[in-house]
Amino acid sequence: VSQFDDDTAVAAAGPKRWHAHFTNRWNIGDKPNGGYILATAVRAMQSELRAQGDDQHPDPLSVTAHYLRPGTPDADVVIDTEMIRVGRQFATIRATLSQAGKERIAALATFGNLDALQTNAAGPSATTLCPPELPDPSTCLAREPLTPGLPSMHEQMVTLLHPNSGWMTGQRSGRAEISGWLGFADGREPDVLSLPLFADAMPPAVFELMDRPSWVPTIELTVHVRARPAPGLLRTVFRTNNLRDGLLDEEGEVWDSEGRLVAQSRQLAMLLT
Amino acid sequence: VSQFDDDTAVAAAGPKRWHAHFTNRWNIGDKPNGGYILATAVRAMQSELRAQGDDQHPDPLSVTAHYLRPGTPDADVVIDTEMIRVGRQFATIRATLSQAGKERIAALATFGNLDALQTNAAGPSATTLCPPELPDPSTCLAREPLTPGLPSMHEQMVTLLHPNSGWMTGQRSGRAEISGWLGFADGREPDVLSLPLFADAMPPAVFELMDRPSWVPTIELTVHVRARPAPGLLRTVFRTNNLRDGLLDEEGEVWDSEGRLVAQSRQLAMLLT
Repeated sequence: VSQFDDDTAVAAAGPKRWHAHFTNRWNIGDKPNGGYILATAVRAMQSELRAQGDDQHPDPLSVTAHYLRPGTPDADVVIDTEMIRVGRQFATIRATLSQAGKERIAALATFGNLDALQTNAAGPSATTLCPPELPDPSTCLAREPLTPGLPSMHEQMVTLLHPNSGWMTGQRSGRAEISGWLGFADGREPDVLSLPLFADAMPPAVFELMDRPSWVPTIELTVHVRARPAPGLLRTVFRTNNLRDGLLDEEGEVWDSEGRLVAQSRQLAMLLT
Repeated sequence: VSQFDDDTAVAAAGPKRWHAHFTNRWNIGDKPNGGYILATAVRAMQSELRAQGDDQHPDPLSVTAHYLRPGTPDADVVIDTEMIRVGRQFATIRATLSQAGKERIAALATFGNLDALQTNAAGPSATTLCPPELPDPSTCLAREPLTPGLPSMHEQMVTLLHPNSGWMTGQRSGRAEISGWLGFADGREPDVLSLPLFADAMPPAVFELMDRPSWVPTIELTVHVRARPAPGLLRTVFRTNNLRDGLLDEEGEVWDSEGRLVAQSRQLAMLLT
């Protein structure tokens, strides 16, 4: 059992309701990371599908979360779920994740079966994207905690940024792109459930435009899981294409060790200056 | 009053419930277009916010819909809404749109105030994207109905494709990108509420890879509204980056006549061969 699996575990707590507990091990600053919150909600939705007898749709193909309030570390979590439709190919479900009676995220997800999709696929394949070129992990920059001494999610992770990630060394590139290797520090291999975490684990790409890092809270994050990741470190790249009136998009790609695009993400976030 | 406003009108029908009616004027083939369905749901969510006394968050900043079943034209619509949170800057609300007792889409949206965001923005702006280069509308290709004689949404719209849109002339480019001008045929100007429609109104970009057009149903569509559009035709471009195992993404940009990026979209869709 891994730290990630332990810290996103959910337990049945009544009809359509699941309990979890946020540790402080996935904090950014003093708050649980948004990807950690989303991964916990996805695990609850997946568990609800199984609890309702659906074993045909194990994989979260498209997951959207709207972030309502920051999460609280070292505190209990309630996830209320509602099945919307179980069809042949897809199952759609929503969830609200709360702590202390206050909603933290609202989520909506469609689950399916990546293996069945692969087996049944008859049409063409075409990818215009390429994995980001990253130097050997040994020459990349390890992500440091924002505040030394405080718990940080990056202690549980392998987070190795491309050496061109200038904001870490005080030489921002002026181009809102950040790339790097991601994985779990305890050797747990990536799977579909961890992709929502990895889709929101890198420092914001917009840091490359800023004099100093600021707070970039997510308003909405959507993750498309496109394939089951192979074992090994993930190659990731995140870009902000449009920063305007204090709002920004961030698009991400997550590639596995066999060169497959395993997740695509997009979020709308706010830049607090 | 415009055709679009008429055909997406909603009326209060009890607590948190709204009624609408899908005409056949926004059909693709024999079904209502997914953007038309979403625009109707967004109008209901906007109306619910107002009905609950919230006049601070008129603009749909981020809207996600999961498509559960095709819509039915010439038929009544029920939209059930649920307010999730009204905060200072944002209001979050969900909706389920049904016809004949069957859910057609589940939606989740965050509303805000584009004018207030613009007024209060203190930080930098940066856009790495450029509007698509489009020839003069007079030299673009008017979108023809899929089946001559049947009603088509394109009769209500100005849909002028870049002449390089090869699938229309039997010379597909092999590059999954389609661009063109979009607007309303009756001269109604674009606004934030029509952007979800325009984000799903162009033919699928993946047609440029196919021997012949097929059916590309949307699984999930997210639209970010980034600015209030100026009057005039919109410049749009849509690209599929990753087609794999019968699923594909499609990313879109919608630009207004003053060169502002007014909407970004991404969908996960299925390719039926």
